[in-house]
Amino acid sequence: MSATPTCLIVGAGDGVGSAIARAFAAEGLTVCMTRRARNLDQLEAVAAAIRSTGGTAHAFGVDARVEAEMVGLVDRIEAEIGPLQVVVFNIGANVRFSVIDTTAQVYSKVWEMAALAGFFTGREAARVMAPRGRGTILFTGATASTRGGAGFSAFAGAKAALRQLAQSLAREMGPQGIHVAHVVVDGMIDGTFARAIAPDIQALLDADAILKPDEIAKNYVWLHNQQRSAWTFELDLRPWKETW
Amino acid sequence: MSATPTCLIVGAGDGVGSAIARAFAAEGLTVCMTRRARNLDQLEAVAAAIRSTGGTAHAFGVDARVEAEMVGLVDRIEAEIGPLQVVVFNIGANVRFSVIDTTAQVYSKVWEMAALAGFFTGREAARVMAPRGRGTILFTGATASTRGGAGFSAFAGAKAALRQLAQSLAREMGPQGIHVAHVVVDGMIDGTFARAIAPDIQALLDADAILKPDEIAKNYVWLHNQQRSAWTFELDLRPWKETW
Amino acid sequence: MSATPTCLIVGAGDGVGSAIARAFAAEGLTVCMTRRARNLDQLEAVAAAIRSTGGTAHAFGVDARVEAEMVGLVDRIEAEIGPLQVVVFNIGANVRFSVIDTTAQVYSKVWEMAALAGFFTGREAARVMAPRGRGTILFTGATASTRGGAGFSAFAGAKAALRQLAQSLAREMGPQGIHVAHVVVDGMIDGTFARAIAPDIQALLDADAILKPDEIAKNYVWLHNQQRSAWTFELDLRPWKETW
Amino acid sequence: MSATPTCLIVGAGDGVGSAIARAFAAEGLTVCMTRRARNLDQLEAVAAAIRSTGGTAHAFGVDARVEAEMVGLVDRIEAEIGPLQVVVFNIGANVRFSVIDTTAQVYSKVWEMAALAGFFTGREAARVMAPRGRGTILFTGATASTRGGAGFSAFAGAKAALRQLAQSLAREMGPQGIHVAHVVVDGMIDGTFARAIAPDIQALLDADAILKPDEIAKNYVWLHNQQRSAWTFELDLRPWKETW
Repeated sequence: MSATPTCLIVGAGDGVGSAIARAFAAEGLTVCMTRRARNLDQLEAVAAAIRSTGGTAHAFGVDARVEAEMVGLVDRIEAEIGPLQVVVFNIGANVRFSVIDTTAQVYSKVWEMAALAGFFTGREAARVMAPRGRGTILFTGATASTRGGAGFSAFAGAKAALRQLAQSLAREMGPQGIHVAHVVVDGMIDGTFARAIAPDIQALLDADAILKPDEIAKNYVWLHNQQRSAWTFELDLRPWKETW
Repeated sequence: MSATPTCLIVGAGDGVGSAIARAFAAEGLTVCMTRRARNLDQLEAVAAAIRSTGGTAHAFGVDARVEAEMVGLVDRIEAEIGPLQVVVFNIGANVRFSVIDTTAQVYSKVWEMAALAGFFTGREAARVMAPRGRGTILFTGATASTRGGAGFSAFAGAKAALRQLAQSLAREMGPQGIHVAHVVVDGMIDGTFARAIAPDIQALLDADAILKPDEIAKNYVWLHNQQRSAWTFELDLRPWKETW
Repeated sequence: MSATPTCLIVGAGDGVGSAIARAFAAEGLTVCMTRRARNLDQLEAVAAAIRSTGGTAHAFGVDARVEAEMVGLVDRIEAEIGPLQVVVFNIGANVRFSVIDTTAQVYSKVWEMAALAGFFTGREAARVMAPRGRGTILFTGATASTRGGAGFSAFAGAKAALRQLAQSLAREMGPQGIHVAHVVVDGMIDGTFARAIAPDIQALLDADAILKPDEIAKNYVWLHNQQRSAWTFELDLRPWKETW
Repeated sequence: MSATPTCLIVGAGDGVGSAIARAFAAEGLTVCMTRRARNLDQLEAVAAAIRSTGGTAHAFGVDARVEAEMVGLVDRIEAEIGPLQVVVFNIGANVRFSVIDTTAQVYSKVWEMAALAGFFTGREAARVMAPRGRGTILFTGATASTRGGAGFSAFAGAKAALRQLAQSLAREMGPQGIHVAHVVVDGMIDGTFARAIAPDIQALLDADAILKPDEIAKNYVWLHNQQRSAWTFELDLRPWKETW
């Protein structure tokens, strides 16, 4: 087993997760990334790109909603790759339905993806970090984390549950040397989805009017590098032109 | 079918739920109450007490986490008892474990009881009230609804999800004439649990230093009776001596 | 000196203040109202209307921003009229300027009206109520109490200061038997200003789409009448059709 | 006039202000610092220390509560020293009295120091930055910024007013290219005051159990350096062992 400090990003299927992986790889950490097994090919390409620039990266096909898979993943990384120094939970599940039109399946699945998987991630990270008395656990939040807008009962409920988990975990693990933080990402993020719906994505990018994943990612590295006399629990991120 | 305005309290197993039932019965509404089937006897006693003072009350053994049971219950009340004018969701699920010591079963079960069952309750209430353009849907919250304290990741996560549901539902249904509100109950409540753990419950009661269910319940009736030009979404309730 | 329980409304110049006065007069309290001396005639008319329906009412021309006037007013009421059981602070000062266009005079004056006068009111009320171990102190808040929107730096700053005062006062005086609460009024209120700017005020009134002062006022009475085992610190009020 | 980017720290009398000055000087900015004229000697010493390490620093004796002094200071810096790229407002005014024991003088003076001076600072910074379409304005907040604890009506009121000012300014100036942010510093900070009251300051420092000014300051520089597609409005800072 190598002693290389290792970073795990759970939910690296989108642009933000990939950017966070690249950012921590550039800091010298070995990077482990997960997404659902059926889309593992795309994640392997992200890992290959990191390796081509001198980093170390591994891609895992994992369903983060399944406890045994998450426990197994963390154990395997600790045993075979390196001690987890940073764990990032970055799975979203944004859907929009009025409460009346929300099925039990949608309500439950959004919670499983955005909250239950976050619970497994945070708990397993804390479990292996606690004996070492150090480590960083980061959660990606959204506007919906603190506001239940019309149409967002499922998404806002899951994101609020995740934020409360992060708060509880920070209060429990902070005094044990584990830095837990929650990043509220507020606004449209450049990526596959934005490029599909925004009429003129290039104009948005040129004007910095849309969140850029690499700029988001820098803040995750910043949080990890904060000295423990001045830790941040929560910060928000939005483009300069965003209305809020 | 009677046209008597009807009130449904989901989770009437504790002192608060019974008190809310009594309070709405005293307002002249037919009261329907639920709790788990295995404890139906106790709920029948509450219903009998209401009937003995001239009210109308029905007890149902229902698992509010099961969609089909909640859909069936609401349909049956509307068909056989009366149009739902007030629906109250009052199931709690307070447990305390550090994140590391929280099992998947505990985390999921608390969410099912405090959030998923609340979603079914709110959605089914909105479904039958919407065509009539009137009705009141009330949710019981707690200190944990807005704060993830150490040891409360499961409970606070579920209560925050419930609060976001209430917010989304209020924003969606308010303009359709449905009054949705969330009551933050902050402090120890007189009841079986308090009487088991508090060393001198009578002193607390004499000093009004503990929340009294009948006083809590009055606020639910107040919210229902607010005229629609000035509706409250959220109010908090705590004893005068409580530190907060 | 009469022992009639007395209510003081500081800032009764608008429709809400008058409605609160009428509501407490209807509860049997002797009502004292203030507004600036130059508009005392209008306040005398409100007092006369209350007296014509059997209530007891007094109008005072007072500048609530001047400490000596507020100390003197409270002392005089206690000495000559009756013990203060309810004190309401209801002075607003809504202005809208960008920060760059806000003068020192505007910024200071808004704070003096909405925060400093509230501090004098709350402090003097607490001073005379504390020895009796009972009383209610109510503050009128607004959307701006918790949100600094564009154009609202002066108003939002003053209203947030008032809300923090109410919180501090509640935490200090609650355990001494004084009920302190803060009412967040969110939306347009029927009154002189609304009637001047709304194109079809009657349609808004018919649809209950605008806050009605008498409906607002009922909540102030409700807060006063809450039993001390279940006190509310904060509630919000908005019309059913309001977007928030 | 030099075109060197310049940073102004209003309220550099404490350890945090000095640390922020050192941090921006190390980034190559010319640093201007203010405190009350009567304590200018100590600030001159801070400036001299910055110059001794190759930085450029100026000390000004200014009463930030006086509009003319703040307008004059900003104009003079822009004319004689360099264009303001960063402006930091760092004046605190922490006092603790129950509401009943708070004098009008204390209540007003705390607001003048912590809110009115912040308004002058933010407004004048925005005035000179707006035509250039860039710049950073940073405000130092505290636990009291969002919570009115017992004993803190004056301090919490002023800090909440400052936070609302920062919010309004961020919403107004963000789309004009000015980054406005608010830093919530939560916990005891190493400095003259802490060293006077803490029984074993060295143990706290060794354990990183107290906020270190240089670590706080790094976050101000970080906020300034964020790219505009992902700006933070608010972050909190507290020691790892802090209870919150």
